[in-house]
Amino acid sequence: MNPKPDSVVIERITPILDGGKYPVKRIEGDDLVVEADIFKEGHDTVRAVLKWRAAGADAWQETAMSPVVNDRWTGVFPVVQPGIAEYTIEAWGDVFVSWRAEYRKKNDAGIADLQSEILEGVAIVEEAGARAENKADAKALKSYAKKLLAEKENPAGARAVADSGDLDALMSSWPDRALSTQVVPPLAVRVERKAARFSAWYEFFPRSAEGKADSGSTFRDCLGRIDDAKAMGFDVIYFPPVHPIGESNRKGRNNSLHAQPGEPGVPYAIGNNRQGVNGGGHCDVAPELGTLEDFDWLVGEIHKRGMEIALDFAINCSPDHPYVKAHPEWFYKRPDGSIKYAENPPKKYEDVYPLNFHNDNWQELWNELRDVLLFWCGHGVRIFRVDNPHTKPVAFWEWVIAEVHAKYPDTIFLSEAFTRPKMMRVLAKVGFTQSYTYFTWRNTRYELTEYFTELTRTEMADYFRPHLFPNTPDILPYFLQQGGRPAFLIRSILAATLSPLYGIYSGFELCENAAVEGKEEYTDSEKYQFKGRDWNAPGNIKDTVTKLNRIRKENRAMQFFTNLEFHACDNEQILFYSKTTPAKDNIVLVILSLDPWNPQTGYIEVPVKDFGFLEKETYQAEDLLTGERYLWSGSRNYIALHPHHRVAHILRIRRWTGREELFDYFR
Amino acid sequence: MNPKPDSVVIERITPILDGGKYPVKRIEGDDLVVEADIFKEGHDTVRAVLKWRAAGADAWQETAMSPVVNDRWTGVFPVVQPGIAEYTIEAWGDVFVSWRAEYRKKNDAGIADLQSEILEGVAIVEEAGARAENKADAKALKSYAKKLLAEKENPAGARAVADSGDLDALMSSWPDRALSTQVVPPLAVRVERKAARFSAWYEFFPRSAEGKADSGSTFRDCLGRIDDAKAMGFDVIYFPPVHPIGESNRKGRNNSLHAQPGEPGVPYAIGNNRQGVNGGGHCDVAPELGTLEDFDWLVGEIHKRGMEIALDFAINCSPDHPYVKAHPEWFYKRPDGSIKYAENPPKKYEDVYPLNFHNDNWQELWNELRDVLLFWCGHGVRIFRVDNPHTKPVAFWEWVIAEVHAKYPDTIFLSEAFTRPKMMRVLAKVGFTQSYTYFTWRNTRYELTEYFTELTRTEMADYFRPHLFPNTPDILPYFLQQGGRPAFLIRSILAATLSPLYGIYSGFELCENAAVEGKEEYTDSEKYQFKGRDWNAPGNIKDTVTKLNRIRKENRAMQFFTNLEFHACDNEQILFYSKTTPAKDNIVLVILSLDPWNPQTGYIEVPVKDFGFLEKETYQAEDLLTGERYLWSGSRNYIALHPHHRVAHILRIRRWTGREELFDYFR
Repeated sequence: MNPKPDSVVIERITPILDGGKYPVKRIEGDDLVVEADIFKEGHDTVRAVLKWRAAGADAWQETAMSPVVNDRWTGVFPVVQPGIAEYTIEAWGDVFVSWRAEYRKKNDAGIADLQSEILEGVAIVEEAGARAENKADAKALKSYAKKLLAEKENPAGARAVADSGDLDALMSSWPDRALSTQVVPPLAVRVERKAARFSAWYEFFPRSAEGKADSGSTFRDCLGRIDDAKAMGFDVIYFPPVHPIGESNRKGRNNSLHAQPGEPGVPYAIGNNRQGVNGGGHCDVAPELGTLEDFDWLVGEIHKRGMEIALDFAINCSPDHPYVKAHPEWFYKRPDGSIKYAENPPKKYEDVYPLNFHNDNWQELWNELRDVLLFWCGHGVRIFRVDNPHTKPVAFWEWVIAEVHAKYPDTIFLSEAFTRPKMMRVLAKVGFTQSYTYFTWRNTRYELTEYFTELTRTEMADYFRPHLFPNTPDILPYFLQQGGRPAFLIRSILAATLSPLYGIYSGFELCENAAVEGKEEYTDSEKYQFKGRDWNAPGNIKDTVTKLNRIRKENRAMQFFTNLEFHACDNEQILFYSKTTPAKDNIVLVILSLDPWNPQTGYIEVPVKDFGFLEKETYQAEDLLTGERYLWSGSRNYIALHPHHRVAHILRIRRWTGREELFDYFR
Repeated sequence: MNPKPDSVVIERITPILDGGKYPVKRIEGDDLVVEADIFKEGHDTVRAVLKWRAAGADAWQETAMSPVVNDRWTGVFPVVQPGIAEYTIEAWGDVFVSWRAEYRKKNDAGIADLQSEILEGVAIVEEAGARAENKADAKALKSYAKKLLAEKENPAGARAVADSGDLDALMSSWPDRALSTQVVPPLAVRVERKAARFSAWYEFFPRSAEGKADSGSTFRDCLGRIDDAKAMGFDVIYFPPVHPIGESNRKGRNNSLHAQPGEPGVPYAIGNNRQGVNGGGHCDVAPELGTLEDFDWLVGEIHKRGMEIALDFAINCSPDHPYVKAHPEWFYKRPDGSIKYAENPPKKYEDVYPLNFHNDNWQELWNELRDVLLFWCGHGVRIFRVDNPHTKPVAFWEWVIAEVHAKYPDTIFLSEAFTRPKMMRVLAKVGFTQSYTYFTWRNTRYELTEYFTELTRTEMADYFRPHLFPNTPDILPYFLQQGGRPAFLIRSILAATLSPLYGIYSGFELCENAAVEGKEEYTDSEKYQFKGRDWNAPGNIKDTVTKLNRIRKENRAMQFFTNLEFHACDNEQILFYSKTTPAKDNIVLVILSLDPWNPQTGYIEVPVKDFGFLEKETYQAEDLLTGERYLWSGSRNYIALHPHHRVAHILRIRRWTGREELFDYFR
């Protein structure tokens, strides 16, 4: 039998993920709204408090919950610092309030003798006085008990005492919680810093910083590219792996099987103990980029500009990686005892050895990989873009992210998983801060509306933060290949305005779209070679990108994701959506053509009622891309878009005229 | 770090209640279909088994699960005996199938040298041979390993060996599960006997068995009433409390405060130690009904007739109950030390003392109440209708039902809670087999459709079994008061055909509807007095009730609940629904007028496609109430109903003519 049976039922708590197996996610400064079904047998008045604390802390903070309807209760607490916070609910039958409710009913019914009832009330108030840990309250409660006792033959007088607001407050402060019920174990929320939800990333290969066709740049040469990204308004500089690159089976230009002398190799084939200073593996930098001191200097320069660095965490080892000699048991072996390279039959990746996460010595491997992450955290890195996490055990990610967060709770992990939906979701649940998405392949109105409704309107909103990349070094989508400059404008606007998290891989702003025939791959990809570029080549869209980043920073509505709402337009080639702050003091409409070739016109339906406008009110729409202003009235408005002159409106909506009814004194 | 990290993700298992806190419910002989998201990193082929066992047993039984779509898997197991069964899922990466898939791809690609790959396969097959616990399999596997080895320089020959169906079956039998993942803790299903889902109850007061106006009947006088109920087709005889009735503050006729001498009292005021044989409380029978031996005899007679008895479990004590003297600490006290009677201010129930389930000596109280239930189980009772469970702690019910089920797993508990929705639900979740519902107050088509859609189409279908009573000793609904005999016909058809569980309180079949003015209460209620009755009074609806019970028994579709489907009719006063078996070999349509006063006509839409009929096929509709047969064609059919001639059709639908396409040999 229970040591103390539950007195109250507390059920169906929200938010909750998979019955409490995973924490939900929030950002520091957010409020976490918690709801639950709370009720008990009989007629007692129930009281409930929402309790929270940092995971591992002893003391709970608490706040009262309130009933909404049908035994559903709600409460809210603020999440204040990165890390895991716990929350739970405690509820109990309120003896005093239940007694008072019964007393009022009997008094209302005109029952003349209520002495027994009054004496019960006296005892309840006296007990609260004995519980009160604060002397003044204890004294006041004892005094109320006396006042009530003095009225024992006077039901009306006793009622006046029982109904006093002071007594109510005192009794609320010192309730009898001896029979309370508390939900165990508590639930958890993963609290992350603001950049986890809102930032714009710029990815470039440091060896390409200067755009030289025949040789590479170093960390010391990167400031120009970083300053340009800063000028465009980006927050994060993201580098593909910066570690020594293997020489054995090094790939050459356009993924050719054998590199020619002088070819730089693929940064994802990591490890070269012949060149290593710090071992030549994952805790080292490629000598052709500079030294660890150069790297530290560069991180400092990035921080000085108010930006952050993101490093790639790619668990790939070249045949030259020091792990191969030191820990051959970490790898898969062939029957002849040699180590297996990566394959996706019939494709072979002879330059990469995959690791066996379940090898007999797996603990050492896992610890080592954790230590790699901690090493870079020690060098000022707090953002990791993780390469192909879906090819490593989910249990590893859950463990390693928790380990890193224990020491550096402000670390952000971006999951680069373009794989099946359930795997993408579980990676986000076990701890990845942000996730790559199918956005890269969602182009039509139907596709975009369906996909972003799933992301914002299902349980995914509680844990999955979509990071939108219109291109990556591995993916040059057909839409960009075929649609040219207008397509780059369309995709940049979608990425920057659908989600508060987006990024571009450098070259996007130059509308680079030379592809391998029939594939979504870049020709002459800089993964395999040096690449000559004019970073200000004519036809670039840097001006639009700069405006987009400015609009995102200046409009708070753009800094949230789940406030995305789609609206009607009678032309299927025009996508219309809005983002608003909860108080509706920042309203942004995006009206975008999805056609990179032809002009498109149509009528949109602005949800003026949702914005709190009067039905025929005239309001102002300011185009944040051009500075033009329009006066619009009502919901139906005409839109004309053109691939070369205007692919989209991004409109900030404001009231234009006031009305006396809106004035406080009117009411 | 985990002792053995999970290798496979197993998530979102269904069915599941509140994250696994409560078992789902099924009936012996049912199949439990279990689904889950199952996947792992990388490209390995996943295998999964569904495992089950009786709770507490050591060994699991298991069956293979199959993938459906998008990493969703399904499996099914039979639940065979009343009690709690556990189920879980184990999954692993299949080394052999993964190897074979890679081997096939390489062979397809025409790679000439696959020696290393073949040797890997040899090792995998050898290891399975070493695992095989069956000598023949071990030998066969070793022989396959040799065959494969013999083909190491012949990729096509090796492939033929690898592709052999025999080898596939052998490898499936002895998989390498060393790295498997199993869901812990397991989930649970509460399995109950068939009467938990399908039965018809008849409630009567044994003292009213003979319908005498001035004196009561005894257990020995009950056979006439029982045989009549048997003839009407009922399965369960349900008695209100049969225990000694208190004398102190005994209520009189029509709930008057003080009984006159000779008045029998309310059976719900339990306990009279002056009359008791076996203590005079809950383990005793009222002397005016007979002795325990008489009770045992009656239970035997009921069982002989293939019926069961249901007893009322009412946790009420009269002031004369032996507990009052023996355990005054179990009750609530007034400040003067006297025991508090029940109240619902300003109403007083001086003849009943409520128990305090959280008193300092609560364990003894809880044990005593459990022992009362076990006592009656010992006297052949396996069904308890529990009075007002929502006024006792939910934790008590969860505990006491588990205690009784541990000894008598075939015990059925019916929750008589007419209270707020969440409380009604949680009582069903913690173990009540069946539940009273709001059916009693659902009369219009909209109300009935909404409510029964909630009961059959939400999660409630997994745990809440609605037991429909059109009347109870406490409730004579306005619909019956005002609608007269047609209303009784309508409500009996609804109760008997909407749910496989229903019951009537005696007098219903006589269309008794004399009410206290303005209330849903019977005048001259037999709760307070003897009641004269002619059990075959003219105007009774016993013939219809008999037909309904026969229809329920003869049509398997009527014995399930969640197969209820509502269909269209163009007249809002006509309700149209169906029940069908999964194989569609039993199809019953109910078309019912909800108007007790006027004729109603309309067109219904029969879902012929759902029944597997051709669009214009002519089919047979047999009215199971009258024996009439109709030939109908297509979905649209005309219906005419009349309060006095025909309130409803209950139609069994059958194919009328065959077609060559339906004949096996045609295909």
